[in-house]
Parts: sequence; structure tokens; C-alpha cells
Amino acid sequence: MKPLSIKDIAKKANVSITTVSFILNGKAEKMRISQEMILKVEKIIQELGFKPNQVARSLRTGTTKTIGLIVEDISNPFFAAIARLIEDKAYKHGYKIIYSSTENDLEKAKGLIRMFKTRQVDGYIIVPVTGLEEEIQDLLNNNTPVVVFDRSLPGLDVNSVLVDCAAGTYAAVESLIKQGKKNIAFVTVDVDVQQIKDRYAGYMNALKDSGIKASKKLHQLIPFSSTPDETAGLLKNFFTKNAEIDAVLFATNYLAVRGLFCFKELNKTLNGDFKVISYDDHDIFKLHSPEISAVDQPIDEIAENVISLILKDLAADHTLEKAPFNQVLLKSRLISR
Amino acid sequence: MKPLSIKDIAKKANVSITTVSFILNGKAEKMRISQEMILKVEKIIQELGFKPNQVARSLRTGTTKTIGLIVEDISNPFFAAIARLIEDKAYKHGYKIIYSSTENDLEKAKGLIRMFKTRQVDGYIIVPVTGLEEEIQDLLNNNTPVVVFDRSLPGLDVNSVLVDCAAGTYAAVESLIKQGKKNIAFVTVDVDVQQIKDRYAGYMNALKDSGIKASKKLHQLIPFSSTPDETAGLLKNFFTKNAEIDAVLFATNYLAVRGLFCFKELNKTLNGDFKVISYDDHDIFKLHSPEISAVDQPIDEIAENVISLILKDLAADHTLEKAPFNQVLLKSRLISR
Repeated sequence: MKPLSIKDIAKKANVSITTVSFILNGKAEKMRISQEMILKVEKIIQELGFKPNQVARSLRTGTTKTIGLIVEDISNPFFAAIARLIEDKAYKHGYKIIYSSTENDLEKAKGLIRMFKTRQVDGYIIVPVTGLEEEIQDLLNNNTPVVVFDRSLPGLDVNSVLVDCAAGTYAAVESLIKQGKKNIAFVTVDVDVQQIKDRYAGYMNALKDSGIKASKKLHQLIPFSSTPDETAGLLKNFFTKNAEIDAVLFATNYLAVRGLFCFKELNKTLNGDFKVISYDDHDIFKLHSPEISAVDQPIDEIAENVISLILKDLAADHTLEKAPFNQVLLKSRLISR
Repeated sequence: MKPLSIKDIAKKANVSITTVSFILNGKAEKMRISQEMILKVEKIIQELGFKPNQVARSLRTGTTKTIGLIVEDISNPFFAAIARLIEDKAYKHGYKIIYSSTENDLEKAKGLIRMFKTRQVDGYIIVPVTGLEEEIQDLLNNNTPVVVFDRSLPGLDVNSVLVDCAAGTYAAVESLIKQGKKNIAFVTVDVDVQQIKDRYAGYMNALKDSGIKASKKLHQLIPFSSTPDETAGLLKNFFTKNAEIDAVLFATNYLAVRGLFCFKELNKTLNGDFKVISYDDHDIFKLHSPEISAVDQPIDEIAENVISLILKDLAADHTLEKAPFNQVLLKSRLISR
């Protein structure tokens, strides 16, 4: 059966479609429709069990109670855990989350913002990709609530929830130096955002402050687009070639997991002469023998701040004034295992 | 600046809004609007740089090139990995995926389907929850493409991609019995779907076929809604109380991971007198010492079949005939480590 339309209601009530529309839109009084007529139409609406078309309603009210969440990769446990927490918290406030991954692909990220615009989400939570500045600025210019997290883009005045990455890797390298490590390697990903650069800066500064000369040889970059096999090949080659390495800091947890697979294959004994630390924690590091140290990012706090900022922004009346933006910088914590 | 509306175009062209709308909708000729008028309005549209409202366009064309993916819990590595694969494959075919988690909550699942309807997704990929039959049947009645995976709902004629769970747990328990295990425990979750019951049935049948009497005592149910701490408490109690257990099969990988945390706390030596198998694999099991055996579900094949079925259904002309539904049953594989 075809769903009932406004036309059916109008016919049954013997009034114009416009009248029904005004009543459905809550504009009846403004449009001077009589109280009697309003009651009559509302009764028919109830009798016929009419449900206004949701898209039409969205067009009318302008809100969809939906927030678009754009992350790097939903299969990464860091993003998956945050997505789940954000979803839980948003749901309690009557918002649904729809998410999608950019895989650090700018064109895909742009496409996702276009899609979410089409779907008319009320606000955006974005793990940005370099090059997305214009799209985000457009959203902001239209007074659309936006919160970015995990990383920022230079020159954008936008709500953000970030972690002090440089302090995290600094503390990790400092602890390795205190344990007498001299040839500390740094394995990172080629994602061009400040937060990944900061992780490198923290590593470099910790070496410098201890008077250790950094060696380019001990700095390995893994393309984000690498398959697990390609990553395994690069890591195996790197650690075999540089036998002097006595400790390694991985800039992300997924790289550290790939590293553990590599060390297993190479039969490398860990945490004695060769110490491993991951930036970002993972259940694997807690269950591994030996346990693997990690710089823990405050996942709960990140999710909590992201959702509070977006809800605050969604509740604000942007017609009155431009909302001030908030930048939250959280601390990471070195967990020595 | 307010975006241009159809009204602005109509005013500038000195025609009615309806005329502009017909031209935008490609209905001008049908509505006998003159060629001259069409050209005039199109020129104005071009001059003013008018972009038709995307929602309005969706209403018109009826497609959004978007597929809604509803999983149990996006932070579970099984669903996260499949979501990522589905997203990759869909993207290559010009479709975007938007996803959300039900957390096995029926009301939330219903709400998500309503939301995706509002967002006018072209098709649905659903990990169903018991009680969702009517909503899915409604979609099917409207010729909306639907594929369910991981589990099915009785009485629904719908495209599905499932794994033969009972065969998987049967093989796991059989291998434990061959290793001389006598008191094999089964730890499962209270999700009321056939596939979880099948995992139990496989366990029971393997015991029966070997003439081992099943004991209720060795069957532990963990509520899906339990926190990690609650799960830890239940597991610790279960394994402490039943010291005779010499092997355990976990019905899901996330329960097995919680189990590993529990055994670590209890200082239990694994894979000698006490053997652990997980239904569903996980990186943790490969990196754990000792390595943990698992019944591996074919994640790639699941994603591949799901996306082929939905694309086939999206491409079909449902006005001609009702599409036949396909049910794909995949095999799992015991990986003994």
C-alpha cells in the first residue's frame, strides 16, 4: 500500500494541501487557520495514522538529530573504541552517529563531507586529512557545528580535541635513555599532519636533551597505504639492517602490532636488550609476553570532550553570534610494562 | 549569503515556481513547457550558479549512492574488519557506506533503520537483532535491497551471508577431545540468535558423538551488556570454581580476549593441561605466548559476498519482478596453534 500523503489528508478534510502543510508545520496560527480547522485536520491525521515523510520533515525543521563522524580507519582499534564511546554518549542525548573512514584519502574525505551534507547531518566530528581545510571552513561559514579530533589543520579556527603527542613520545624516549638505550629507532607513518610530526619532534627533542645524536638511519617511514605484507617486509629489512638498534618507539599502535609480528618472525627477544614502546595502547600489549610499554591516549576523555563540544555547539543559537571555538589539549600517559 | 532557491530562479525568469521545478526535474516536455522557456530558465540557472538542493534531488532521482551498514558493535575487530572491507569494495563501485552499531539493542536497531530510511540509503547491510523481522520485511516489501550477515532471522526470505557456526565449534571440540580433554567448558554470550545457538549445538554434538556427557556446570553464559570488569568477575569465578576444566571453547573472540586477561591474572598455564580455543580469530591469539587456536571465519569472503549481493540487488530492476534472494553459507576453518 502506498504511504499516505498530505494530499490524502487534504482530500479527506476537504481543505487545501497548503492548509494541511501549515498545520503540520506548526504554522497554522500564524497563517490564521481557525482552531476548528486545526482540530479537524489533526483528528484526521490521527485517524489515518499519517506519518509525515521524514525527508520532508527534515527539510522543514532543518534538523535530523544525526551527527556525521569521519575517522581515518574504523578498523583501527583506537578509532573504533572512540567511535563506540561517541556513539553511546550521543545516543543518550538523542543523537545518532553515522560514520565512515577516509583512509587518509583527501578525495574520499571530501566525498564523505558532501555525502553527509546531502544526508543533512546536524554536525560533524572529523579526523581531518591535510587539504580538507576549505571544506571544513565552508561548514563553519554556514554555522554548522564541527569538532575535529586526533589532529588539527593549521589556520582553521575550529573546535578541537587533541592530545599532546610531542610530550608523549618525549617521555617514552626519555624513559628508554634512562634504561641505558643508545640506538633508539623511530618507526612512523607518512601521514602529513602536525600530530604525527609532533610525535617525531618529541623523539628528536628527547634525544637532543640527553646529548644523543639522532641518526637518519634509525628513522623508518612506513607508507599508510602499505598492506600488512609490505609493512612486514619494510620492518624486517629495517631491523635486520640496523642490528645496533636497542630500542624502538612506534608512532602508532597498528605499526607496533606489525612490529611484534616482525619480531616474532625474527625470534627477537623483547624488553631485555631490545625494548619496544608503542605510542597508543592496545589490548595486545597487555597480553603479550613480555608486556609492551605504551604511551596511552585518554580515549574516554577524548570521546567525552568531543561529544560535549559538539552538543554544546548544536544547542547554541548561531543566529545570535558566532560561537567561540574551544581547543582542548589532553595529556597522554606513559605506561611502563 | 542565503543559497539561491527555486523561487529566486522563478522570479528572475518571470515564470512560476512549478515551471522551474518541472524543468529541473526533467519533466518540462511532458508538462508541455516550450523549448524557448526551457532554454531561458536553464540559462538563468547557469548564470546564477544555482545548485539544486541535494535532498530535493534525492527525492527526485530516488537514489543516494549510499548503503547503510548496521553491525552489532563497530569496536569489535570482527565487525570493524568486515566494515572496512565492505567500505573499500563499495567505494570502488561508487557507493558510500554509512554505519552504526545496534549493541544488540532492538530499539536502537529499529531507530537506526528509521534513520537510514530518513537518510534515504539505497540499500541495507544488517547484522540483525531478534525482533527486527517486521522492519526488515517492510524494507523487502518496498523492494529495498537488503543483505543480512553473521546471523539470520527465522522466517525472513532475505539475502544472507552466514558461516556454518555449528561445524566450526564441532571441529574445535573434536580436536580438543582428540587431545584427550575430558572437561571441556563452553563460554558464550546471551545473544538470542540462531548462530550463537548453533555454536552451542556444535559443542554439544561433538561431546555427544564422542560419548562424553555434557555438564551444565561447564557452560557459562556472559550477558552481552556486561562491562569488561563484570565479565572478568564472572570468568574468574567460573574457572576458579570448576578446577576440573581442562579446555575451554569461547563462542566469540572478544570473550576469549577477556578470558586471556582472566588466565593471566590467575597465573594459569595455557595449552598444556589447559587448552583454549576461540571461535573467531584475532591478532592477539597469533601474538600470544603460547599462541591460541581459533576457528577462523572467512572475513574476506564474507565481505566479498555481502557486497556482491547488495550490488546485484541495487542494479536489479525491481519493477519487473521480485528479486530471488540468495543465501550464502560459508565454511569456517580451525587453526590449531
